[in-house]
Amino acid sequence: MSGNTLGTLFRVTNFGESHGPAIGAVIDGCPPGLSLSEADIQVELDRRRPGTSRHVTQRREPDTVEILSGVFEGQTTGTPIGLLIRNTDARSKDYSAIADTFRPGHADYSYWKKYGIRDPRGGGRSSARLTAPTVAAGAVARKWLMQEYGVRIRGYMSQLGPIPIPFDSWDAVPENPFYAPNAAIVPQLEAFMDQLRHDGDSIGARIEVQAEGVPAGWGEPLYDRLDADIAHAMMGLNAVKGVSIGSGFECVAMRGSEHGDELSPDGFLGNHAGGVLGGISSGQPLLVSLAVKPTSSIRIERHSVNRANDPVMVQTLGRHDPCVAIRATPIAEALLAIVLMDHALRHRGQCS
Amino acid sequence: MSGNTLGTLFRVTNFGESHGPAIGAVIDGCPPGLSLSEADIQVELDRRRPGTSRHVTQRREPDTVEILSGVFEGQTTGTPIGLLIRNTDARSKDYSAIADTFRPGHADYSYWKKYGIRDPRGGGRSSARLTAPTVAAGAVARKWLMQEYGVRIRGYMSQLGPIPIPFDSWDAVPENPFYAPNAAIVPQLEAFMDQLRHDGDSIGARIEVQAEGVPAGWGEPLYDRLDADIAHAMMGLNAVKGVSIGSGFECVAMRGSEHGDELSPDGFLGNHAGGVLGGISSGQPLLVSLAVKPTSSIRIERHSVNRANDPVMVQTLGRHDPCVAIRATPIAEALLAIVLMDHALRHRGQCS
Amino acid sequence: MSGNTLGTLFRVTNFGESHGPAIGAVIDGCPPGLSLSEADIQVELDRRRPGTSRHVTQRREPDTVEILSGVFEGQTTGTPIGLLIRNTDARSKDYSAIADTFRPGHADYSYWKKYGIRDPRGGGRSSARLTAPTVAAGAVARKWLMQEYGVRIRGYMSQLGPIPIPFDSWDAVPENPFYAPNAAIVPQLEAFMDQLRHDGDSIGARIEVQAEGVPAGWGEPLYDRLDADIAHAMMGLNAVKGVSIGSGFECVAMRGSEHGDELSPDGFLGNHAGGVLGGISSGQPLLVSLAVKPTSSIRIERHSVNRANDPVMVQTLGRHDPCVAIRATPIAEALLAIVLMDHALRHRGQCS
Amino acid sequence: MSGNTLGTLFRVTNFGESHGPAIGAVIDGCPPGLSLSEADIQVELDRRRPGTSRHVTQRREPDTVEILSGVFEGQTTGTPIGLLIRNTDARSKDYSAIADTFRPGHADYSYWKKYGIRDPRGGGRSSARLTAPTVAAGAVARKWLMQEYGVRIRGYMSQLGPIPIPFDSWDAVPENPFYAPNAAIVPQLEAFMDQLRHDGDSIGARIEVQAEGVPAGWGEPLYDRLDADIAHAMMGLNAVKGVSIGSGFECVAMRGSEHGDELSPDGFLGNHAGGVLGGISSGQPLLVSLAVKPTSSIRIERHSVNRANDPVMVQTLGRHDPCVAIRATPIAEALLAIVLMDHALRHRGQCS
Repeated sequence: MSGNTLGTLFRVTNFGESHGPAIGAVIDGCPPGLSLSEADIQVELDRRRPGTSRHVTQRREPDTVEILSGVFEGQTTGTPIGLLIRNTDARSKDYSAIADTFRPGHADYSYWKKYGIRDPRGGGRSSARLTAPTVAAGAVARKWLMQEYGVRIRGYMSQLGPIPIPFDSWDAVPENPFYAPNAAIVPQLEAFMDQLRHDGDSIGARIEVQAEGVPAGWGEPLYDRLDADIAHAMMGLNAVKGVSIGSGFECVAMRGSEHGDELSPDGFLGNHAGGVLGGISSGQPLLVSLAVKPTSSIRIERHSVNRANDPVMVQTLGRHDPCVAIRATPIAEALLAIVLMDHALRHRGQCS
Repeated sequence: MSGNTLGTLFRVTNFGESHGPAIGAVIDGCPPGLSLSEADIQVELDRRRPGTSRHVTQRREPDTVEILSGVFEGQTTGTPIGLLIRNTDARSKDYSAIADTFRPGHADYSYWKKYGIRDPRGGGRSSARLTAPTVAAGAVARKWLMQEYGVRIRGYMSQLGPIPIPFDSWDAVPENPFYAPNAAIVPQLEAFMDQLRHDGDSIGARIEVQAEGVPAGWGEPLYDRLDADIAHAMMGLNAVKGVSIGSGFECVAMRGSEHGDELSPDGFLGNHAGGVLGGISSGQPLLVSLAVKPTSSIRIERHSVNRANDPVMVQTLGRHDPCVAIRATPIAEALLAIVLMDHALRHRGQCS
Repeated sequence: MSGNTLGTLFRVTNFGESHGPAIGAVIDGCPPGLSLSEADIQVELDRRRPGTSRHVTQRREPDTVEILSGVFEGQTTGTPIGLLIRNTDARSKDYSAIADTFRPGHADYSYWKKYGIRDPRGGGRSSARLTAPTVAAGAVARKWLMQEYGVRIRGYMSQLGPIPIPFDSWDAVPENPFYAPNAAIVPQLEAFMDQLRHDGDSIGARIEVQAEGVPAGWGEPLYDRLDADIAHAMMGLNAVKGVSIGSGFECVAMRGSEHGDELSPDGFLGNHAGGVLGGISSGQPLLVSLAVKPTSSIRIERHSVNRANDPVMVQTLGRHDPCVAIRATPIAEALLAIVLMDHALRHRGQCS
Repeated sequence: MSGNTLGTLFRVTNFGESHGPAIGAVIDGCPPGLSLSEADIQVELDRRRPGTSRHVTQRREPDTVEILSGVFEGQTTGTPIGLLIRNTDARSKDYSAIADTFRPGHADYSYWKKYGIRDPRGGGRSSARLTAPTVAAGAVARKWLMQEYGVRIRGYMSQLGPIPIPFDSWDAVPENPFYAPNAAIVPQLEAFMDQLRHDGDSIGARIEVQAEGVPAGWGEPLYDRLDADIAHAMMGLNAVKGVSIGSGFECVAMRGSEHGDELSPDGFLGNHAGGVLGGISSGQPLLVSLAVKPTSSIRIERHSVNRANDPVMVQTLGRHDPCVAIRATPIAEALLAIVLMDHALRHRGQCS
């Protein structure tokens, strides 16, 4: 319970730092008999990989995953699945200049306050690089959920900074670096990002993630509701500052006669609830929305202090994502998959 | 890990149903030597008690708490604190009419799908009545946090349906039934609620909760970040559909040069981060915001189905909160206290 | 994870002290649809109840259990089952004399060292009275295991102090206060206990517990092996100082050609393994053995110290079991039931 | 909670198979600021390494550990410590003959029953090879315990099959391959083992492990007593069939006036309790005893069945420990260290 394990029955334990020798995860509790290869995982890692467009960090990491255990003759055995990803493009010198100062809005300050020790190499443990093992584990969950229950998980960006991205079609999503569900708006997003990079600044964004095909009945009230565990997982993702389900914050201004989704013999007539009632899945699509803050590592000079609490100006060079949310879609999908698979197993344990 | 326990070192296990003989909680892991009496807990229970104004459910429950264990000669012993609250105003007949149908937006549908069994007495386990044991446990955490660290937790309603409630002063909060931080707006809120009750409808609201005095260093990244555990606790509260930290969803449209809080030798110059950086408290006030959906139990007739999946019209009589958020402020405060105390102990365990 | 909860999916949280107002447990994770009444639990509580023969403590407790939640119309709902047992025969004055001294071999010393606070009323939390809620929870597990899998759990005393008790028949077990599987030896046990009581001393004993009908496949290696979790539960029982499986410590002197149980098409040809191979049940009867130390509260005067570390002589009057193992058989059965049910659910979750 | 993680605050997650590419562990919750290098861990791994005498398996594994994370500039950072050990001498062909049959007394039968899949390569996950990551993690705990509290953990073999090994001196222990605390008896042990190997058989043994310097107050009653968690850890070690504390099973025949350790102003006058009272450490040395069964993989032909349940004769060739207990001493020490460090942190969390 020391913070680096996600899940109760399907458990993902994450280790590593941005610029250490390797990062990885151990998945415990995966059912036996799932066909699994490194290719199943690599495809998801490649979706969140850095360096794939000019709008993300230019760090070059192949993010090649090695399965160390838990798979025999192409099938999971039910024992822990060890996953290893070597860091290959760590340039620790980039960070030497900032080892003694704190970036406004960055975890380097709070890590130092907590542990009394600070690993300045690329943000160390607080780096978004540590989402790679999460994505790797999520690939296993995603495959199992599809195979066992036909659950399909996907996501997209619905707003980039001030630019809302109207949903047009899922087909557009994989065709642009933003996971935007709208091909027509991509040039505008590109231009915005180019200007932002030129300014040396960063920007927030909003991500939507969905799961279709989730059976009714998953979730463990009172406290470990399905939506509570989703909120835990999503708010645990770097830079996320808000999580909502279904109509989310819009429910504040809504009446019960409007928000409560009516039922007919053919099913629900709306989905303001976002697929969860009382913490238990209702059988409708799960709808999750994330607010992702702008990256704190920017080229623009900012006021800060150093360890001695002297005032300093801080300017962060090196390789950073100007919009960390651009690569967040596959990560949020992975987190949703992990939570869902965990609850599928929990439900099976108690109620099968 | 079956869903009814909150926390890792400071653990609250909740039991009971709305119309069963009793509800309660067991608190495990409380440090020894804390002065504690039933009065310490009762004061918080009274803040969330039903029937205290015409705007909430008229169920009459004294919510008297009995401490069954864990306290000797007025001090906690370090062993489990058993808390018992008898239900005294259960009227199960109110609910007999709805036992076979499903209220749009209510958990009775998903509970039935999950467990195959349904306790229709006042929503059974899914009732907001089960927040009382949470509040009782939170009273213990709140007292300990204040005494050990000077942490002060408080909250207020910032929006009621379409009416934003501008923050005026903390002094106004306990003086009205809405926990509104603005005395001038109360008549408008009263009028809105009176009309709503007349309409037989319900309404959403937005709640803000804060903790001041939290030291830097609490939180367990990667997954059990302080904000992730807060999101888990808050999204686990009945009717909550969104949780955000600091500037929350506004970060989507912000630039890094705006969102990242600068530091000076006198401390931070802003608090867009809401007191958490990289999942660890920064020493600033913790700022949490909740979206609470409108109650699903309303008098207005709605389309639904019965267990046989036949179409029916559902109208919910009985005693219900037309705005469940009105009583949510002390509950959200309690949840924040529980999460903070748990993380205080976890931090002490690893880093003291 | 603060020590008063047993189990992962079937979870029992225990609270109370020997001389506080009440003791009890919350069971979380019980599957829905199990027929359950207070009578199902009371029968097991009556088996471990004090005061039923002259060989056990003369404290008179009816140990009447009240189900507070989790059961609706005679069936479990899948939500937490709250169990309450009021203390009715607490005589705190009995213990006032010992509040400042430490009984040799008793937990009062270590509790004081740990918590800095001491509840001297009947041993407070360390009292064997706290096994009652465990037995109550075990009754639920036992019923479910029998119904779902035909698992039958029973136990007996195999040695009382220096007197080995040869197994004769299960029929004898409920017919004597010792749970001795041998009617002929009972007069010898009675005489031994009468003399012991006359001496003001206490004695150890050995208990055997078995589960028949456990399917092959329960247990979670590496660390949470079925036998590891059994050892955890049993060593957690008051006064237990040793736990073994199958041939137990006799394996030390055995050869592999003797200890390894051969298989035939009709099943195993022996059960030295005690029903567990590699931490997973093999389908054979589970065989568990416990060493129970003599009670530390005796009338014979002994050397000790008081809180000021001055030498004192301690003599413990009041009502105590001269052989705490006499009532241990139903408790050990309950613990075995809880562990097995937990692993049944865990196995179902991962491998169903 | 899927079985491959040990501990609550100091958590060790173990992965790997005997003949897969690698084995390892992730340690979560280690306090920051502990000086740690691979050499600190390697010294313990070398103590349990195979192939170091003719009495153990002749598999040649350097068991070289690589620290993948959690250490920066020679100090732990408080973040997860990833440990990797590559398998280098896997010879899967040795096991092909047994893939379809079950060794009497071996986990291959129960693993197959549980998972429906079997990794026959050297026992796969059930191999004693998986104790290496446990030993690596234990090295970290051992170092921390010594540094923070002066706790010293050591063990020895007290019986090899029918040969009791009288304790003579700690100095003898590292000087012979058996961890025997008696130099004079070593020739007898050697002769016994040579004959056993000649016979193609295996043998059990008894191991004692101790911790000196443990402060009073560690342990979490009711269920997670210090001795309960020790029993869990030890019974979770391959081939262990019995665990006892202090006088252990001898307590069965003892009186309270004999077993209860008296106190004087200078401390306890005996240690029948083995350093634990009521589940909490008393400040005395912790005394733990283990019964280790004989290895099930032997050259002698035995009756068994194959997957089709046909009768077969099984003879296990390949490289096996004829007495798995010979290498168990450092493993049991590591497990004791892990449990103690976990409880040290838990105690600090609640009671510091």
